Amino acid sequence: MIRTHEAGTLRAEHVDETVVLAGWVARRRDHGGVVFLDLRDASGVVQVVVREDELAHDLRSEYCVKVTGTVRVRPEGNENPDIPTGAIEVVASRIEVLSEAAPLPFPLDGTQEVSEEARLRYRYLDMRRPETAEALRVRSRATYIAHQVMNENGFVYVETPYLTRSTPEGARDFLVPVRLQPGHWYALPQSPQLFKQLLMVGGMERYYQLTRCFRDEDFRADRQPEFTQIDIEMSFVDEEDLFAIGETLFTRLLRDIRGIELPRPFRRMPFAEAMDRFGSDKPDLRFGQELTELTEFFAHTPFRVFQAPYVGAVVMPGGASQSRRELDAWQEWARSRGAKGLAYVLVQQDGTLGGPVAKNLTEQERAGLAERVGAEPGDAIFFAAGERRASQELLGAARLEIGRRCDLIDQSAWELLWITDMPLFEKNDEGGWAAVHHPFTAPAEEVAETFQDDPATAKSRAFDLVVNGYELLSGSIRIHRAEMQQRVFETLGISKAEAEAKFGFLLEAFKFGPPPHGGLAVGWDRLVMLLAGQHTIREVIAFPKTASGGDPLTGAPTPITAEQRREAGVDAVPEEAGA
Amino acid sequence: MIRTHEAGTLRAEHVDETVVLAGWVARRRDHGGVVFLDLRDASGVVQVVVREDELAHDLRSEYCVKVTGTVRVRPEGNENPDIPTGAIEVVASRIEVLSEAAPLPFPLDGTQEVSEEARLRYRYLDMRRPETAEALRVRSRATYIAHQVMNENGFVYVETPYLTRSTPEGARDFLVPVRLQPGHWYALPQSPQLFKQLLMVGGMERYYQLTRCFRDEDFRADRQPEFTQIDIEMSFVDEEDLFAIGETLFTRLLRDIRGIELPRPFRRMPFAEAMDRFGSDKPDLRFGQELTELTEFFAHTPFRVFQAPYVGAVVMPGGASQSRRELDAWQEWARSRGAKGLAYVLVQQDGTLGGPVAKNLTEQERAGLAERVGAEPGDAIFFAAGERRASQELLGAARLEIGRRCDLIDQSAWELLWITDMPLFEKNDEGGWAAVHHPFTAPAEEVAETFQDDPATAKSRAFDLVVNGYELLSGSIRIHRAEMQQRVFETLGISKAEAEAKFGFLLEAFKFGPPPHGGLAVGWDRLVMLLAGQHTIREVIAFPKTASGGDPLTGAPTPITAEQRREAGVDAVPEEAGA
Repeated sequence: MIRTHEAGTLRAEHVDETVVLAGWVARRRDHGGVVFLDLRDASGVVQVVVREDELAHDLRSEYCVKVTGTVRVRPEGNENPDIPTGAIEVVASRIEVLSEAAPLPFPLDGTQEVSEEARLRYRYLDMRRPETAEALRVRSRATYIAHQVMNENGFVYVETPYLTRSTPEGARDFLVPVRLQPGHWYALPQSPQLFKQLLMVGGMERYYQLTRCFRDEDFRADRQPEFTQIDIEMSFVDEEDLFAIGETLFTRLLRDIRGIELPRPFRRMPFAEAMDRFGSDKPDLRFGQELTELTEFFAHTPFRVFQAPYVGAVVMPGGASQSRRELDAWQEWARSRGAKGLAYVLVQQDGTLGGPVAKNLTEQERAGLAERVGAEPGDAIFFAAGERRASQELLGAARLEIGRRCDLIDQSAWELLWITDMPLFEKNDEGGWAAVHHPFTAPAEEVAETFQDDPATAKSRAFDLVVNGYELLSGSIRIHRAEMQQRVFETLGISKAEAEAKFGFLLEAFKFGPPPHGGLAVGWDRLVMLLAGQHTIREVIAFPKTASGGDPLTGAPTPITAEQRREAGVDAVPEEAGA
Repeated sequence: MIRTHEAGTLRAEHVDETVVLAGWVARRRDHGGVVFLDLRDASGVVQVVVREDELAHDLRSEYCVKVTGTVRVRPEGNENPDIPTGAIEVVASRIEVLSEAAPLPFPLDGTQEVSEEARLRYRYLDMRRPETAEALRVRSRATYIAHQVMNENGFVYVETPYLTRSTPEGARDFLVPVRLQPGHWYALPQSPQLFKQLLMVGGMERYYQLTRCFRDEDFRADRQPEFTQIDIEMSFVDEEDLFAIGETLFTRLLRDIRGIELPRPFRRMPFAEAMDRFGSDKPDLRFGQELTELTEFFAHTPFRVFQAPYVGAVVMPGGASQSRRELDAWQEWARSRGAKGLAYVLVQQDGTLGGPVAKNLTEQERAGLAERVGAEPGDAIFFAAGERRASQELLGAARLEIGRRCDLIDQSAWELLWITDMPLFEKNDEGGWAAVHHPFTAPAEEVAETFQDDPATAKSRAFDLVVNGYELLSGSIRIHRAEMQQRVFETLGISKAEAEAKFGFLLEAFKFGPPPHGGLAVGWDRLVMLLAGQHTIREVIAFPKTASGGDPLTGAPTPITAEQRREAGVDAVPEEAGA
């Protein structure tokens, strides 16, 4: 090492020691012949006093320097209790410039708002800011804790291929041309799903991996084309075993990173209840404002809008005092989500109901409504009516909006919740059935033989773990019988030939004594984001991409040369089959 | 869990307990009304006794079963001391078939030679063999130990992108078309080299990662298109710091996996000495048979072949008794390596020299030769003459062949060696200069300002760690001055414009106070191969690829559909520039 100490570790006990430090000039202040430098390295900051002007005269912000000096107690009154080294300073006898710094594109001291584009373009400067560095360090600590937990629980770390075959998981695959087999392409894995199931067939019993996954999706907020998950699979288990390892992992992370002891077991809620009460399959339980179903209540209403298969409501505390403009903005908000609008009633201070909907209701309805939904004078009641699922989702979104606007969310709370009894199938855009989890999910035991007869009501053995409204973990017991897998494929409209072509190798593996098995995957970027107290996953990714998949730092992606194109065999026609 | 115990953990202390086991039928023996099953799970094997024939009558090899039974001491004389459960057996009261197994493509008991193609095609069956499973488990243990060591030493785990920009490291990049930016392509990283250097510029100081790397190379024995390395980078360090972390990592792995205490510090040898003494930049020190340089000895020889810039020899103990055919085979061997042949002299039992070369030598040369090279009566002496490096490499390869054929290699030994003072440049095929390590390697301090004037002799600050003849780690102190980096690029014939286009972002980062830094990368597949006592890296990769990059299990790579091709934007012309 070219230094003897780390800057941030110096304390009063080092007084009178000669030290050699290396780091960056975080700040420079000139005080009549004496220069004060804040010297920063990975461990923290220490004040360096330079008395001879020539030592420091060309030092600017972010110069990388080596400082030789003597530690001394700061003069009385100059202590800085805000930093761990605040009792001492280093009097420099020698300063060596290790490298110079050009004027910075933005200051690193947080005094100025910096665009995300600029931060990513100069990520190596952004990273010198303690907040950015700390987010990456939290990620590193969390990663190690995850390895510890999995190791303590007897899991085997297995690396699965990144250059592989397309797996059918709902998103598009990224493709890679294969020069040595022109006309043939690898796919980057959307997840190691098939490989981890093959590892179970192989008798590995307890597998885990911290792995990158790749999905070529259209822009959605806070998505990355590559993301990290902790991937787990176990044999001879049922849901309780998967819950147990998930709870062990999450409690350890919360305890060791945030000092929070989570009570176990975590709460559980069937999917249908979550939709009924919170209008969401990932309810944020840090606040109330539950939905009230009013379908029965309005069963005989004259109001045409409420003559619907489902009517529900959510209350906004104090919402009656919103301006006309604010109430209009809610309509706009609802339309941006694809709804026609958001009917509302305002509960006046005298208990009467205001707003355009109220006059369409019967007197009886008006009389009972506020009590039925738990609204107080001064509240607003928002309604959704129509198809059950879509209406509940609209109310669930309104509930979250209300929570934010009314500051109802306890930001210090950690509310973890298992969502169970998930549906096996959902309608896809073409009117057929799609897998809610993925096509390898086992049906609930009571519909194991019959799910194909009524896909709409069939429950599955899939589950999610929801943390503060984020889905951070998905898992399921898998199908391990080729015959049952075949029935799922048929329900999904995947022909025998297509199934054979896409994952015949899995079906073949299932011929050789596959064990009952199940597993889960943890969305690592998002979990670390929460652990680090950040609000986008980009804050906990060292080199994230923008929404269009670009990296402002390296300029990736780029055009390729004709030579690269030819060499990679991009335009070759495969020998066996035409493209 | 659907079982109460793991099969391999049952001992005498469990006698009389009722247990539920789950696993696979490894073997079945019928003994007049009693069936003995070897039940295997991840923990090992236990003997199950089935007295009622109907319980077991349809069980075949590799059926997956759940067994309920009672543990009892084996009848006297029936103990099996070869397995940990050999003192007991489980008397089955109930057997449930969890899944059936079709007839196996090959037996799993090791009784039959199985082709690698078949093993990879049915990797999930191959993996049920304890040897294959153990290799993967060793890898998992080694991975965890590596995390422990890096964590104990204050390293931060940072995940770098896989979808990135081409990095110039000597091999071809795998390319990925970008649908959202048609005509633009990502490259899969050959290593995180540039990112880890950016992390150092960012002040991360101690970085590591277990990371996949991708190189689109032509077939070479035991290579994979994707491979794993442990990637490390440190700031404010010199070579000694990098040696220290490398030695800490390797000693811990050898101790914890193999129970071997390696002496520290490891041996060191300059590159030139390794070439002179062993004809290799990765000498296997598990045996002697060092090369002898004879250039001076033959300075005045009349033998035209030895009138060369370099003449050297290596001795084959007992080699004089080789048949004419064996000696001819050596010539064939040398020609297959691109040499003209391999001159030899046979030292007869009476001390006279035989073979076709001997008669071309002077009497004085003949008289002194055996002593000079350390040959005894009965030995063969092999020669190489010509250009120094190529001749030494031929002799180095012959030395390894001799070591193998004469069984000179101590297979239980672990010989670790740092190769230092590596050359900075080497001639490339076009007569220019190529980087021996990579273009970011710092020149040795004594040629820091002058290397460009004499690239042939310039040493670098690069090093390798060689283990039993395998290069398992490469590292270097990097260049951190843009000006010096520019001179290296110029020497490599990389124009300013080309450098700017390819890694302008790194050069730009170097404008902002980059710290002195260095790092290393450990070839993880090969290191685990040695730790697991295996002979190919494919044995320690769960799903390896064949030489042509194919996966016999999944069938990857495959042709893509016209739809996929269109969607991925493979044929789009980028807007900014033509391809």
